[in-house]
Parts: sequence; C-alpha cells; structure tokens
Amino acid sequence: MNLKIAVLPGDGIGPEVTLQAKKALHAIGVVYDHEFVFEDALMGAVAIDKTGNPLPEQTLNLCLNTDAVLFGAIGDPKYDNNPSAKVRPEQGLLKLRKELGLFANIRPIKPYNSLLDSSPLKREIIEGADFTIFRELTGGVYFGEKKLNDAGTIASDLCEYSEEEITRITHLAFKAAQNRRKKVTMVDKANVLETSRLWRKVVKKVSENYPDVLLDFLFVDNAAMQIILNPKQFDVILTENLFGDILSDEASVITGSIGLLASASLGNKNALFEPIHGSYPQAKGKNIANPIASILSAAMLLEHFGLHKEAKKVYEAVEKAIEYNVVTIDLKADSKFGTNEVGDFISNVI
Amino acid sequence: MNLKIAVLPGDGIGPEVTLQAKKALHAIGVVYDHEFVFEDALMGAVAIDKTGNPLPEQTLNLCLNTDAVLFGAIGDPKYDNNPSAKVRPEQGLLKLRKELGLFANIRPIKPYNSLLDSSPLKREIIEGADFTIFRELTGGVYFGEKKLNDAGTIASDLCEYSEEEITRITHLAFKAAQNRRKKVTMVDKANVLETSRLWRKVVKKVSENYPDVLLDFLFVDNAAMQIILNPKQFDVILTENLFGDILSDEASVITGSIGLLASASLGNKNALFEPIHGSYPQAKGKNIANPIASILSAAMLLEHFGLHKEAKKVYEAVEKAIEYNVVTIDLKADSKFGTNEVGDFISNVI
Ligand SMILES: CC(C)[C@H](C(=O)O)[C@@H](O)C(=O)O
Ligand SMILES: CC(C)[C@H](C(=O)O)[C@@H](O)C(=O)O
Repeated sequence: MNLKIAVLPGDGIGPEVTLQAKKALHAIGVVYDHEFVFEDALMGAVAIDKTGNPLPEQTLNLCLNTDAVLFGAIGDPKYDNNPSAKVRPEQGLLKLRKELGLFANIRPIKPYNSLLDSSPLKREIIEGADFTIFRELTGGVYFGEKKLNDAGTIASDLCEYSEEEITRITHLAFKAAQNRRKKVTMVDKANVLETSRLWRKVVKKVSENYPDVLLDFLFVDNAAMQIILNPKQFDVILTENLFGDILSDEASVITGSIGLLASASLGNKNALFEPIHGSYPQAKGKNIANPIASILSAAMLLEHFGLHKEAKKVYEAVEKAIEYNVVTIDLKADSKFGTNEVGDFISNVI
Repeated sequence: MNLKIAVLPGDGIGPEVTLQAKKALHAIGVVYDHEFVFEDALMGAVAIDKTGNPLPEQTLNLCLNTDAVLFGAIGDPKYDNNPSAKVRPEQGLLKLRKELGLFANIRPIKPYNSLLDSSPLKREIIEGADFTIFRELTGGVYFGEKKLNDAGTIASDLCEYSEEEITRITHLAFKAAQNRRKKVTMVDKANVLETSRLWRKVVKKVSENYPDVLLDFLFVDNAAMQIILNPKQFDVILTENLFGDILSDEASVITGSIGLLASASLGNKNALFEPIHGSYPQAKGKNIANPIASILSAAMLLEHFGLHKEAKKVYEAVEKAIEYNVVTIDLKADSKFGTNEVGDFISNVI
C-alpha cells in the first residue's frame, strides 16, 4: 500500500514522540512492503512563532490532501498564562478538526497485564477493564460562539448541538459496540442541559437500528465516579466533546500512564491520529516522554486502512517493550530508557 | 442558640437520610441546650407530584425566612428518561440555589483512616489526602439561556460568567486556604473557553490580596486525572459550576463512598446543607442508604453558626460509627446495619 501521511509534530514533546511513531511506521513499511511517505508541517505554538498562525494555510492544505494525519501535541505555557492572547496554539488544532470534519474521536482504554500494578487503582478494580470512548469532536462548547464584553467583565461560551451532529457519531459508536460487548453508555447531564436532552432523544432514536446493543445513560458526574469505582461495567462510552475530554483523561489512570493512550479522530473523508496526552512542556527535549501513545496512534492509523496484521505487529512490539521493561520513567521510575531508546526498541522488534 | 431550620427531604433516599440528620441535630440540641426548630417542606419530584411545581412558593418562602436549609436529594428516573418533560425536579433545586443566592458550594474531601482500604484507589495514594472543593453554584451553563428550535433538532446551553460572580467565590476560597495549607488550585479550560479565561484573569487579580496563598492552574481534563493520580497535591480547588459538579463526584472515590460526603452551599444571607450524593432511587425505602453524608451536612450547619464543639461532637460520633463498623452496606458489604440503625447509633453517641 501507498500512503501519504502529513506529520504535525506540534509543541512540547510532540516532535520527539512523533519521531518514534514515524520510525515504527517506517519499519512496518519495510517489513510488509508498503510505501509510507511522510510530509512534516507546522501547527500550534511553533507555527505561531514562525508564521503568526497556529494552523498555516499550507498545513491545512497538506492535511486536506493526504491520506492521514499523524499529530503530536499542542500547547505552550506562555499562552496558557496569558488569558488575553488573541492567537493561541489550540485554535490550530480546533480549526484542523473542524476543517477536516473529524467528528469522532475514538479513545480505547485497556490496561496492559504487566502494568496492572502501575495504576493508582487497585488491581482487582482494573483487571479486565476494556472500553472505548467515542467523543464527539467538532461540536459543543468548543465551537459555539465565544463572547467577551468590551469592559472585559462578562464572558460566555455557547454549547450547541444539532440532531445531525449527534446522529453520525452515534452510528459509529453503535457499530463499534456490535463488534465488542454490545453495550453503549451515553454520558450526559440531561437533568440540567438542553443539549444533553437532545442527545438523549437522538441517541435513543438511533439505537432502534441496533436492537442487539444495550443502551444505558449516566449523568456525567456519576460517570466520572463510576469510571473509577467500576470501570469494567463499560464497553462503549458515547459522549459530547467536553465531557469526552474530561472523562478520557480521567480514564487514563486505569492504564497507569496517559503516555500509553492513543486516539483516532475520524471524519467522512479524513482521519487524524494522535496521543491523548498533551505537550508536557516540562519534559520537552529531555528524552523522557513516553512515545508509546504516539506509536499506538500510528497503529490505529494502520488499522484504519485495513492493515490489521501490520497494526497487530505494532501492538505486539509495544507489549514486548512493556514486558521487557523497556519503558520511560512514567512507567518505571528508575528506568534508564528514554523516548528514543523505547522507540528504537519497538521499531527493531517490528 | 435558637435556630429555625427548613428541612427539604426531597426525592428517593432523601427523606430517610435527612431524618437521621434531624435526629443528630436533636441530640446535639439536648446535650448543648440549643433549640433547633425544624419545618419540613416539599421540593423535587415529590413536590411536582403534589403541587405541579418542583419548588412551591411556600417552600421558597420558608427557606428565605429560616436560618438554614437542610436538604436531602433530588431526582427521579421518570423525568430523567423523558427528555421532553417540561417540568423537572432539578429545576426546583436550581431555582432554590439561585433565589437564595447560594453561590459557593463547599465540598470537603478527606478519607477516614479506618476506611482507607474501602477506596478503589491504593492506600498510599489517598492516605493523607485532604482538600476542599469550592464550586461556584449559581452561574455557568446551569443558568445560562437554554434553547431548542421548533423542529426540536438544534439545542443550546449558554455558559456565562461575570467578574462579580467569580470574585465573590474566589475570596471565600482564598480565605479558606489561609486557614489550611495555603494553596488554591484553579481548575478551568482556559485553552478553549472564554469564560475560563475570564476566570483566570479575575482569580489572578483577587489572589493579589492573599500573598500568603499559592495559586496554580490546571486544565479540567488534567485535573480529572490528577485527582486520582495524586490527590495529596490539592488543598483548595476552585472551579466553576459544571466542573465542580463532575470533579467532586469523582473525588468521592477517595473516601470510599459518596455516601460520606457532605456539602455547604453559602450565600450572603442564606445557607443550605446537603449530601453530595443524589436521590439513589434504587435504594429508596430499603433502609440501606448511608446517612452519614446527611449527618455530616448537619455538622457543617453547626460549624456555619459557630457551634464548633457541637460540630466536633458530630464528627466524633460519625468516626465512632465507622470505627465500630456500624455502617451501611456501601462501606461493608455484609453489614447488618441500615440507615436507621446507623443514625440511631450516631445520635446515641452524641
Ligand atoms: C489541547 C486541547 C484543545 C485538546 C482538547 O481539549 O480537545 C486536548 O485536551 C485533547 O483532548 O485533545
Ligand atoms: C441534581 C443536580 C442538578 C445537581 C447538580 O448538578 O448540581 C447534583 O448533581 C449536585 O451536584 O448537587
């Protein structure tokens, strides 16, 4: 297979971890005789620094015209602590999600057997947990109108959803559930929010097409508790943009490190793959960031193009690294291996 | 002291647990020679059933003219699963919060030593954790304009905050931190939301009045993870309405049971005390609900009126119940004690 992949390393640890994902894909290409052509482009704080724009036109065009996007991380403290900055790195990522129509962000959560003890949760709570979060990614409060009055004393964000936006991701979630344990848990705040009530109504309607899938509902406050109390109860979690953001970072504790969690963001035409961790600026350039989330994002990319045995090869190589303790310090405090060494080990195993 | 207390037992397990709190307050009154006069009133689904209104005029007037409100729980599945119900129980609670101006919801989180093993988190993670969440309670997406178009296909909720709303709760949070470990962590999503950026700006400004208190910031997704990874890092968490709702339910896992967590909702004139758990309809009338959260809410009421030794007495009685295993099944699966027995034990110890 021939794939053209846009690579947006982004900010902080983005470049170091993305490099490892490229190495892994390259290794897969060699072994299985595929041609992966990478083209790097700017996005995020680095793009602002060089061009003034967090998503330069050129980057967007590249992404629109490649088979897939491999993305690193975004964000820089110099913007976070300046509430009045007009241009911010995150705008680049949000715009990219919107322009590529990446409405479904898929985040699988499953602990590795050999890492069961690295979680802050007890082994018996997490052993056997295996669920996937379907987070709506191009709607909700992320994209609604934002206002600040002239005096700078009143601000607002509009959370908006349409039936159509809810319908399309709901189908994906139910289809995924059909290939899993056939349960969808919709998370909302329908006792307070109008948008949540619309979600409930639409999801119920769509669910009628999937009579083999069980549907239940949880309020988001309860869900935030249940994910820790009893993560095994979940199969597919379906939720809106902001709740999905919060719950998926929270759920990372089940695996012991957010540095292990990958995600796929899918639209009708385009697809982007990214670790769920952020830019982790404190670790930048120190060769300590965990590259596994980025490498697993590359594996999700392979799966997306039907390259299942190739993806499996990557998963197995990652498992081997974990099994042999070739991991970064987030997983083993006294580890001697850095980002690069873990990446090299995994590509060599491939 | 002479206190007139409005009691709103509400829905589900509300009445059973609130009864135990009344018993505890009664016992305190006898021992310390205070007169607590209780007046019960309707709110929630029960109020809708009887009057059509989740917060009858009479209830509101009572609450406006008493020293404090003791509240049970609200919510009923028959409304949750009917997205098009026009009148819902939660509207009663939200209206009450608004009308009484209860802008600060204070939720302390601290595990009991003898319960360290009932948490899904490992002992070493939670031992020594002790923080308080200051949740803004009368603003944000809970109270912004809600819309649904005529076709019922597009819904929206407006999240709005003013400088004034942020300022008043921020002062309370910093004052509390001065009497604690002198650290405030503001939780927001300033990389995406305009309201969060206003929060950051205002909180920074207010913090200048408290040079002895350290202020730091976390994005809500990261905070949801950090509360589980390392709860000991927190002293006072300050956040907006919806984030506070989610994070405080989540944080309940640290204590082993949400049935242990109390809260105070304060305004300039009024004060309301309530468990953070919900109406738990499955347990209604079964004498299995944990009354401790409600009893501890009563203790927070006592503290609010400066009755510190009385509050301490309640805390000690609760500790004794826990120590002697006189607890409900959420804390000890094979317990023979029910809501009533735990409540009786605690009042007797008082
Ligand atoms: C960087 C930020 C805008 C982003 C989000 O909130 O969506 C990140 O937290 C994520 O989850 O991908
Ligand atoms: C019942 C509901 C409206 C309420 C809220 O979301 O505020 C509850 O969850 C709480 O935390 O007090």
